[in-house]
Amino acid sequence: MEAKLKELKAHLNDIFDLQGIAGILYWDQSTYMPKGGAPARARQMAIIQRIAHEKFIDPAIGQLLDDLQPYAESLPYEHDDAALIRVTRRMYEREIKVPTELTTAMSAHAAASYQAWTEARPANDFARMQPYLEKTLDFSRQLANCFPGYDHIADPLIDFRDYGMKAETVRAVFADLRAQTVPIVQAIMAQDPADDSCLRKHFPESQQIAFGLDVIRHFGYDFDRGRQDKTHHPFATKFSIGDVRITTRYKENFLGEGMFSTMHESGHAMYEQGLNPEYEGTLLARGTSSGVHESQSRLWENVVGRSRGFWEHFYPQLQAHFPDQLNDVPLDEFYRAINKVERSLIRTDADEVTYNLHVMLRFDFELALLEGNLTIADLPDAWNARFEADFGITPPDHKDGVLQDVHWFYSNIGGAFQGYTLGNVLSAQFYGAALAANPAIPDQIKQGEFGTLHEWLRTNIWQHGRKFTANELVERVTGQPLTIDPYIAYLKTKYGALYTLEV
Amino acid sequence: MEAKLKELKAHLNDIFDLQGIAGILYWDQSTYMPKGGAPARARQMAIIQRIAHEKFIDPAIGQLLDDLQPYAESLPYEHDDAALIRVTRRMYEREIKVPTELTTAMSAHAAASYQAWTEARPANDFARMQPYLEKTLDFSRQLANCFPGYDHIADPLIDFRDYGMKAETVRAVFADLRAQTVPIVQAIMAQDPADDSCLRKHFPESQQIAFGLDVIRHFGYDFDRGRQDKTHHPFATKFSIGDVRITTRYKENFLGEGMFSTMHESGHAMYEQGLNPEYEGTLLARGTSSGVHESQSRLWENVVGRSRGFWEHFYPQLQAHFPDQLNDVPLDEFYRAINKVERSLIRTDADEVTYNLHVMLRFDFELALLEGNLTIADLPDAWNARFEADFGITPPDHKDGVLQDVHWFYSNIGGAFQGYTLGNVLSAQFYGAALAANPAIPDQIKQGEFGTLHEWLRTNIWQHGRKFTANELVERVTGQPLTIDPYIAYLKTKYGALYTLEV
Repeated sequence: MEAKLKELKAHLNDIFDLQGIAGILYWDQSTYMPKGGAPARARQMAIIQRIAHEKFIDPAIGQLLDDLQPYAESLPYEHDDAALIRVTRRMYEREIKVPTELTTAMSAHAAASYQAWTEARPANDFARMQPYLEKTLDFSRQLANCFPGYDHIADPLIDFRDYGMKAETVRAVFADLRAQTVPIVQAIMAQDPADDSCLRKHFPESQQIAFGLDVIRHFGYDFDRGRQDKTHHPFATKFSIGDVRITTRYKENFLGEGMFSTMHESGHAMYEQGLNPEYEGTLLARGTSSGVHESQSRLWENVVGRSRGFWEHFYPQLQAHFPDQLNDVPLDEFYRAINKVERSLIRTDADEVTYNLHVMLRFDFELALLEGNLTIADLPDAWNARFEADFGITPPDHKDGVLQDVHWFYSNIGGAFQGYTLGNVLSAQFYGAALAANPAIPDQIKQGEFGTLHEWLRTNIWQHGRKFTANELVERVTGQPLTIDPYIAYLKTKYGALYTLEV
Repeated sequence: MEAKLKELKAHLNDIFDLQGIAGILYWDQSTYMPKGGAPARARQMAIIQRIAHEKFIDPAIGQLLDDLQPYAESLPYEHDDAALIRVTRRMYEREIKVPTELTTAMSAHAAASYQAWTEARPANDFARMQPYLEKTLDFSRQLANCFPGYDHIADPLIDFRDYGMKAETVRAVFADLRAQTVPIVQAIMAQDPADDSCLRKHFPESQQIAFGLDVIRHFGYDFDRGRQDKTHHPFATKFSIGDVRITTRYKENFLGEGMFSTMHESGHAMYEQGLNPEYEGTLLARGTSSGVHESQSRLWENVVGRSRGFWEHFYPQLQAHFPDQLNDVPLDEFYRAINKVERSLIRTDADEVTYNLHVMLRFDFELALLEGNLTIADLPDAWNARFEADFGITPPDHKDGVLQDVHWFYSNIGGAFQGYTLGNVLSAQFYGAALAANPAIPDQIKQGEFGTLHEWLRTNIWQHGRKFTANELVERVTGQPLTIDPYIAYLKTKYGALYTLEV
C-alpha cells in the first residue's frame, strides 16, 4: 500500500505542478503580459490544461485508486490518506467524464475571450463579446452534459465549485435570504443616504498601496510566500503553498476600491497559505469550495475590515497616510461612509446589504441561459430590466452592466457566482464560531491584533484544504449546517446601529 | 507532403509553446517570485522541460523527418520548408541523444542552484555554491558525453550555443584577438585614466528607467510585444514572437549600469521580435547562435549606444533628466567617461577593450574544469590568480569574483561565455556591412533616427532566425567568414581618438 500511495502521489504531484504553472500563466496574463503575447498565451494555457487533463485521466490513476480503496476504507474518515484517496477519486471520476478535446478547446477559448474582454469592457462593446459568450454558453452546456442525470443543467457546474450544492438548494437559500434582505434594503433606502464623499477625494495610489500592504501584513498574510500586483479584476492565485499571490486595483478618486479589495484577496490567500504543508502536491491542497473560500475573503474584508473596532485602531494610521483628505473626517463619519448602503451598479463595490442581490441576479441569469430560456443576444436588455426591477436604476452602459464581471468572459456560464453569497452567509456563521471559542477577538481587533482569529481559522478551516467538504466543514466547525440566521443577525445588528431598521 | 509537414509543425508548435512556458517560469522566478515559491518552481521547471523533451524525442518526429527528407532535398537550400526540416533534424538528432532523466535532473538542479546563488552571491558565500557547482560540472560532463566522438569535451556544449564552433576554433580566434588586444590595453593603461566621476553621482532610479525606455523605444523595441522589469542579472527572453521581454538592473550610484544594460537587452529582444512571423511555433523562430545574438546586443549597446554620434542627440535629453548631475558636464567628458578603459572586476561592467579578456578567462576555466585540470574547490583561487595576471588586480571577494555571473549557477559549465566575445567581433563586422549598404546611418544616429539600421538588421539578420547557421549568415551578410579585423579596426579608431595608441 505504501508503494501504491507513493505512486499515486507522484502522479498527483505532476498534476499539482501543472495546475500551478497554469496559475502562473494566468497571473502573468492578468498583470504584466503585453498585448502581443495574447495569441501564444491562449495556446500555452491550452497545452498546459490539456497535459494536466491527460495526466489526470491516466487509467493508472484509476487503477491505483481501486487498489487503494480497501486501505482507505480501513482508515478513520479523518485520516489524511483516507481523505487523499476519497477526494482524488471524486475528482478523478469527474475529470474522466470530460473529453480532452473539450477541455482543450474551452481553455483556448477562455484565454482569447478574456483578452477580448480586457479591450471590449472599456470600449463598452457588448457586440464584440456576444460571439464569445455564445461559444462560452455552448461549451458550458457541453460540459454540463458530460454529467448526465442532473436535476438541473447547472447542477454539474455548481458542483465543480461548491461540491454538494445544486441549483435547487441554492435557489432555496437565496429565496430565503432575499425575503429577509429586501425589507432591510427598503428600510434603509427610505432614509437619508450616508455621505461617503470622504472616500471620494484624491488618494494617491502609492499611499493606498502602502496602507493596504500594512493592513494585510497585520492580518497575517505572509509576504515571503506571496506578493501583490495590479490587475483589471482582482484575484488570488496559488502556484504552490509557498507562493500564493494576490492582485488588486486602485482608484485614486475612490479609497474604498483598493483598500477593501486588498483585504478581500488576502482572505483568499491566507486560506491557501494556511493549508497543511503536508498536502503540497496533492488535490487536498486547495480550499474546499467556492463558498468557503469566499467566506474567508468576506470575513477579512467585511466582518473585520468594515467593523468599527478595526478602524478604532487603523483609522489614525489611515489619516497619517492621507492627512489632507481625512484629518477633518471623524471616525464615525468614515465608518458610516465605508458601510454606505446604496443601490449601485457594480457588484464588487456593493455594500454588504445589497451585494447578494447582485449575485442572485447573475445566478438566475446563469440558470436561464443554460435552460435556454434566455439568449446571449437578449442578455443585455434582460440585465438592464432586472437591474431596474431589483435596484431601481438602469445601468447607463454595458461596461458597468453586463460586461462588468470577468467570470463569464473567462470561465463557464453556470456556477460562477453562487459562492459569493454562500460565502457572505458563511462568513458570519464561521465568525460566530470563532467568537464563541475566543470571546476576546473583538477586543484584540480593536488593538490591531489578529493572531487569535488567524490561528483559529488556520486550525479549524484553512489547514484542512479539501479534506472535508464544505457541508462537513460547516457542521464540524459551527455545529450546524449552513444557515442564514447568523448573517441576517449580523446585518441587523450592524446596520441597525447605522440606520433605523423597523424590521 | 503537405499533410506530413502540417503534422510536423503541430508537433513543433507544442514544443515551441512549452519552451515559451519554461521562459515564463524563469522570467517570473527572476523578477517577481517570492522566496517561498522556489521549491515548487524547481519542480515546475523540471516538469515542463521533461514534457518538452519527451515531446521532442517522440519517434513520430523522426519518422516525419525521414518521410520529408526527399521533399527537403527537392527544394532550394533557402526555401523555408527546407530550412525547417534541416534545422529540426539537426536539433532532433541532438535531443534524442540526451536521456530524459538527465534533462529532468539538470533542470531541477539548475533552478535550485539559481535560487541558492541569489542568496549566496550577496553573502559572498562560495562554500555554499561549491556543491552545486560540482554537481553542475558533473552534469555538464554527462551531457557532453551524450555526444561521443568530440575532439574536446567542451565541443558539444559549445555547439549547443554556437553551432559549428569547436573549442579549437574558438581558442584560435581568442588567441589572435588577445594578441591584438593586450597591446591596446597596455598602451591605454600607461596613460592617465579617464575620469568617470560624472557617472558616479546619485541618479534616481525612476529617471534612469524613463530615459532608458525612451532610448530603446527609439531603437525600435516594440512595447506592444514586450516590457521591461527588474532582476538580479539582466536577460532578454521570448515567450512567443509577440512577447519578448527584457529585464534590467539599476544602480543609483552609477549611471552606466542600467542605461547600457537596457540598450544591450533591447538588442537581443529586437532580434527575437524581428523574426519572420511565419516561423512562430517552429524551431526556426530563434536567433541562430549565441554569438550572433550577442552581436546584436553589443551593436546596440556599444557600437551605437557608446558612440559619440548617439550622444550628440541624446546627451541633452539625458541632461534634462539629470540637470543637477550633468548640466555642468560637457559632452566630451561624458563620452570619455562612458568609454573609460580600466582593469575592472565585473565582466558586465567592463569596457569594450578589456571585456574580451574577462570572457577568455571564463572560457579557459570552462575548458580546464571539463578536462579535469581544475577542480571546483580550486576554482576561486585559480580565478583570483588568473585575474591578477590578466588585470593586475585581485578580486577583494567572491561576490565580485567567481560568483559574479549567473551562468554556471543556472546552466552548464562549458559553452556559456564564448558567444559574448564572438558577438563583440561580429558586431563590428555586421555594422560594417550595414554601413557599406547605407552610408547615411551614422548621420541618422546623430539625429536620433535608427529606422534604417533597424530595418537593415531585421531584413538581413533578424527575420531569418535559425534558417542560416551563424557561419552561413556571416558569409551571406558580410561576404566573408568571421574575422576579427573590423573589430580591431573599430577599437583602434575609436580608442585612438580617446587615447594615444602607438599600435
